[in-house]
Amino acid sequence: MMNQVVILAGGHGNRMKVAIPKPMLSVLDVPMLGWVIRACESAGLSRICVVTGYKAKMVEIYLGNRCRTVLQEEQLGTGHAVMQAEGFLKEFDDGNTLVLCGDAPFMDSETISNALKFHIQQENAVTVVTADLDNPTGYGRILRRGSGIAAIVEEKDATEAQRKVREVNSGAYWFQTKALLELLSGLSQSNAQGEYYLTDTVGLALEKGWTAGAYRAENPDVVLGANTRKDLLHLNEVARRRVLEWHMDNGVSFVCTDGVIIGNKVEIGAETTILPGTILRGKTKIGNHCTIGPNCILENCTIGDHVTLNSIQAYDAVVEDAVKAGPFVHLRPGTHLKNGVKIGDFVEVKNSTVGEQTAIAHLTYVGDSDVGKKVNFGCGTVTVNYDGMVKNRCEIGDGCFIGCNTNLIAPVKLGKGAYTAAGSTVTKDVPEYALAVERADLKLKEDYSKKKLRNRLFPGDDE
Amino acid sequence: MMNQVVILAGGHGNRMKVAIPKPMLSVLDVPMLGWVIRACESAGLSRICVVTGYKAKMVEIYLGNRCRTVLQEEQLGTGHAVMQAEGFLKEFDDGNTLVLCGDAPFMDSETISNALKFHIQQENAVTVVTADLDNPTGYGRILRRGSGIAAIVEEKDATEAQRKVREVNSGAYWFQTKALLELLSGLSQSNAQGEYYLTDTVGLALEKGWTAGAYRAENPDVVLGANTRKDLLHLNEVARRRVLEWHMDNGVSFVCTDGVIIGNKVEIGAETTILPGTILRGKTKIGNHCTIGPNCILENCTIGDHVTLNSIQAYDAVVEDAVKAGPFVHLRPGTHLKNGVKIGDFVEVKNSTVGEQTAIAHLTYVGDSDVGKKVNFGCGTVTVNYDGMVKNRCEIGDGCFIGCNTNLIAPVKLGKGAYTAAGSTVTKDVPEYALAVERADLKLKEDYSKKKLRNRLFPGDDE
Amino acid sequence: MMNQVVILAGGHGNRMKVAIPKPMLSVLDVPMLGWVIRACESAGLSRICVVTGYKAKMVEIYLGNRCRTVLQEEQLGTGHAVMQAEGFLKEFDDGNTLVLCGDAPFMDSETISNALKFHIQQENAVTVVTADLDNPTGYGRILRRGSGIAAIVEEKDATEAQRKVREVNSGAYWFQTKALLELLSGLSQSNAQGEYYLTDTVGLALEKGWTAGAYRAENPDVVLGANTRKDLLHLNEVARRRVLEWHMDNGVSFVCTDGVIIGNKVEIGAETTILPGTILRGKTKIGNHCTIGPNCILENCTIGDHVTLNSIQAYDAVVEDAVKAGPFVHLRPGTHLKNGVKIGDFVEVKNSTVGEQTAIAHLTYVGDSDVGKKVNFGCGTVTVNYDGMVKNRCEIGDGCFIGCNTNLIAPVKLGKGAYTAAGSTVTKDVPEYALAVERADLKLKEDYSKKKLRNRLFPGDDE
Repeated sequence: MMNQVVILAGGHGNRMKVAIPKPMLSVLDVPMLGWVIRACESAGLSRICVVTGYKAKMVEIYLGNRCRTVLQEEQLGTGHAVMQAEGFLKEFDDGNTLVLCGDAPFMDSETISNALKFHIQQENAVTVVTADLDNPTGYGRILRRGSGIAAIVEEKDATEAQRKVREVNSGAYWFQTKALLELLSGLSQSNAQGEYYLTDTVGLALEKGWTAGAYRAENPDVVLGANTRKDLLHLNEVARRRVLEWHMDNGVSFVCTDGVIIGNKVEIGAETTILPGTILRGKTKIGNHCTIGPNCILENCTIGDHVTLNSIQAYDAVVEDAVKAGPFVHLRPGTHLKNGVKIGDFVEVKNSTVGEQTAIAHLTYVGDSDVGKKVNFGCGTVTVNYDGMVKNRCEIGDGCFIGCNTNLIAPVKLGKGAYTAAGSTVTKDVPEYALAVERADLKLKEDYSKKKLRNRLFPGDDE
Repeated sequence: MMNQVVILAGGHGNRMKVAIPKPMLSVLDVPMLGWVIRACESAGLSRICVVTGYKAKMVEIYLGNRCRTVLQEEQLGTGHAVMQAEGFLKEFDDGNTLVLCGDAPFMDSETISNALKFHIQQENAVTVVTADLDNPTGYGRILRRGSGIAAIVEEKDATEAQRKVREVNSGAYWFQTKALLELLSGLSQSNAQGEYYLTDTVGLALEKGWTAGAYRAENPDVVLGANTRKDLLHLNEVARRRVLEWHMDNGVSFVCTDGVIIGNKVEIGAETTILPGTILRGKTKIGNHCTIGPNCILENCTIGDHVTLNSIQAYDAVVEDAVKAGPFVHLRPGTHLKNGVKIGDFVEVKNSTVGEQTAIAHLTYVGDSDVGKKVNFGCGTVTVNYDGMVKNRCEIGDGCFIGCNTNLIAPVKLGKGAYTAAGSTVTKDVPEYALAVERADLKLKEDYSKKKLRNRLFPGDDE
Repeated sequence: MMNQVVILAGGHGNRMKVAIPKPMLSVLDVPMLGWVIRACESAGLSRICVVTGYKAKMVEIYLGNRCRTVLQEEQLGTGHAVMQAEGFLKEFDDGNTLVLCGDAPFMDSETISNALKFHIQQENAVTVVTADLDNPTGYGRILRRGSGIAAIVEEKDATEAQRKVREVNSGAYWFQTKALLELLSGLSQSNAQGEYYLTDTVGLALEKGWTAGAYRAENPDVVLGANTRKDLLHLNEVARRRVLEWHMDNGVSFVCTDGVIIGNKVEIGAETTILPGTILRGKTKIGNHCTIGPNCILENCTIGDHVTLNSIQAYDAVVEDAVKAGPFVHLRPGTHLKNGVKIGDFVEVKNSTVGEQTAIAHLTYVGDSDVGKKVNFGCGTVTVNYDGMVKNRCEIGDGCFIGCNTNLIAPVKLGKGAYTAAGSTVTKDVPEYALAVERADLKLKEDYSKKKLRNRLFPGDDE
């Protein structure tokens, strides 16, 4: 018996004023379609067919080899969309088929699995997934008959009494695949919109004397979709809050969650504190006892334990234990900060390894460099890694002391314990423990500013 | 027939602990009085008299020539305030007069126009603008008589039953101007406060056998005012949310609106995303498909399409298409970034034009400069535009390559394709394709740090 | 008569996944235990015994000499915890004893004092402090008898009817000290958990024919505690909002409070505006008419009047009147900015005094320096205060003009009105009004980049 999924992803978000298919709109940086597919996969359903329509190419590129697709060329309703998957359905028609909306991102694997169990147990031809809402306005209402379902009534067709029903249609259904195929062939366009409605399958099944049921999901968010950007913001808020609460349950501390956005794949250790305005994206992993924020962005970063990051942005960087960085720091891809590194303000590090306990206190750029441990960077140091044609590396040995406003012209190597004098441009290798100085004589011109300054700045200052 | 407006703006926000007139307190950077005047103007009412009182001069300066003003020297009530405009009213007494509170910023043009239509249709002497509130506590309640109004009862004078009335007085009224003049002359100070109350005009009109009506506004926010800073924060929140929703309807995307404040005059194109902590002020205009934020401030800026701005502040700047800037960038007035410019971290640009595809990657100041296209700025470059007396300009030709920590002493001109060596101070013009070098010889002092360093940093390191 | 306090602080926050005692978890940067002690002290109660348990050492270190402590070695319930203080109680048994939970931070001095008055007036043996909650779920319910109390029923033992009671136990009690000692000796472990419950004292007192009362606090927040990190976040939100409202009542202006966190000891003058994302910590004091934020962190800072701070972080700094700083500035401990100083972008100041009207516009580090008034710092200036061994000071006289990318090698002194040329490294003192220049000759190499550049950058540019 093969259980499989058809996901409807052909819709256009007209009211979003956006030229992309609605299921491709993102909730917490993942397209809604991605949320739906992930829920299926978590429920053990890997045979999935996505019905595309508006800007099908964009959906196909996003899916890659992850799912099959079929194209619905004309937008003739949800029933018509499922019809496009007829070939897919017929390949394995001895099991059940789940039909899902590609733009209802909070359908979860537990609901999918429990609804299937119920569907099989009840021997239903079709099982509608439903939920009870405090405010059902706008949704199709479920009319019950015994323990089964009598009908789904759309908001606009509902009587006053029917509108009070709080159980609503999620738009997700389990069908016996054979029954689905037969029901699809019975759908008609004889309605005001001239469309084939998947909801009509319930009535058709009952007419045939088959059993039709409704599985009430415990999680009412399964029905949530988005017609407007306001709805989409709401989905993001629901997802955001859910992720934050999951981290709180894991022992992560928040004083104020304003502006905190954490992606689904982020891991954070216990007793770490996240301060406001912090955005964690991609496969970021943070250890224990850290303080991250305020106003950090970490994307695909690995952060150790006891790390303090204050107002920094880091992308594809590795930060080991007990590092302190910030405020106002930019760690670009390929940065690796080893244990106990200290980075102060207005520092950029890129494609470089920085050794243990090295300090880069202020206004410095370290790029394409291999830096030893216990190095001290003076303020204004620049690793001159680009000569206009190619990028070269700097190698800086353990215990080096780089003077302020030093230029290190790559490729260049500073031996262990080497010094550079402030303001020097270092164009050749410096041996261990040597000092490199590039400097002209200092000349003083007496009384240079006497006339121009005195009257302007010190009007009362007589000679 | 002349329809005109009297706006009451004499009040002092005692409970705000602020030495400015209450209507001058701002909601989203615009004084509440400005909101009220704009609503009148949108409703086609341009003949406006503002009644000033507390710190009248401040209101007069703000208004400039936009409205007439009259001074209420003593604070003797709302009726007394309108009396001060008697001269203004008598100039054109054949139409209707709208009386508005200068500190109720959400009165809107639609309510003003519809209330006037109702007022004329009903041939009312006076029409009170009202709204239904879920929680009417603190507001004057509207007692109805048939389709008209019987009385306005203040909270403190209301019976238990009257307090349950949810229709409240907004403090805005349409009067037949002639009726208003007659009613004002009938007001008395015979009450506990010894003040002339404008609300008493309703009772007076009814005594005279005139018709008095109430127009119920659809937008309940028209009644909102502020007595405390908490109220004022609430007004800001209402205004903020309204602006955000308006942009969402236009196709602008928000993942989380925390800390996002967008002024009334800001325009944003569809499919642009605004990230948290972003403040957009003044006449800022943003194109399509941009990503702005987090934590940007843009004030009076014009931003093209496909622009990415991350944690930058920009004031009176023009940014063309496909520019990327940030994080930690400051664009000061007179900045013009052309198509495809890239600005990295810790960069300031001021009063300069930067040509297409030029890159300013890090720790650089470009001021008072004209920069060509495809220029590459090394890290730490400074355009030395100020000699302590005057500011001069730098001119940097197409395709120049500026070495790191270069000083360009303005006025100076770099020809097309010119190079400067890292660490050079460039005091004279550099011809096309030439290299400018200012550098002393590099000297190495062997074993300079051997003794002082070795014991400290490498205790286990024997020679 | 001696009134005294026993605070229970032995609990472990298991569900917080944190290895510290629950009362040591912070709300707005102060451990909950600190909030409780402060409330006692404000109520004039200085004789306090804290019962420790889990990680007692951590509590003892935090308390120092502030309170006595006793250790509860086994966790055998709240009654058992109070028993550990028997010695403390017996020292002065002629008065009353307040028992408080160390993890209910919003117990306030007014409730404590009023409950004591009530307790004495009613001649109660024990008085439970209670509060009415809209949602009492999870709390012990108060069953009344006449004006007194009949019992406290835990949620899990309550009948349907009892669960509807909205008056709940705060966990705080006033006892006559003698009665408490007698009641404690009567407690037993005969319950499911095998623990001694302090709540059982109420029943015991009634059995003895003593009077037991309940004092209903006006502030329902007195009952709030935290079992989960979600609860703890809620406590932080309550505390945050309360502090913000207190400042609003004092005339401080907020446009949007997102991400604003203000500590309990912070003082802010009237007509100052705090923008989003601003965190004020420690003993920070801000004057009137300032604009602070967005995204500032100020910790233990003293800020004058009419100061504008935009996206800066300052720690242990003093900022006088009319200073403007930001965006992107870091003021480290020992910074003192005098009247009218202007600090621009990407500037760090540390352990330095900066004189009146001095300007540090961009990309500069001023450390360990004494700077006069009306000094102008060029972009990229570095005070080279560290030679790898010791830190030295720079002294910069009034009206100096420091050229861009200048290094001032400390110790060094620039006399009044001294100039330094851009790019110079200044290694010795500069007399008044003198100019210091360290610079090599500028050489131009013609046609240096002609070949390598032209084909790459200007493919269509024929010679």
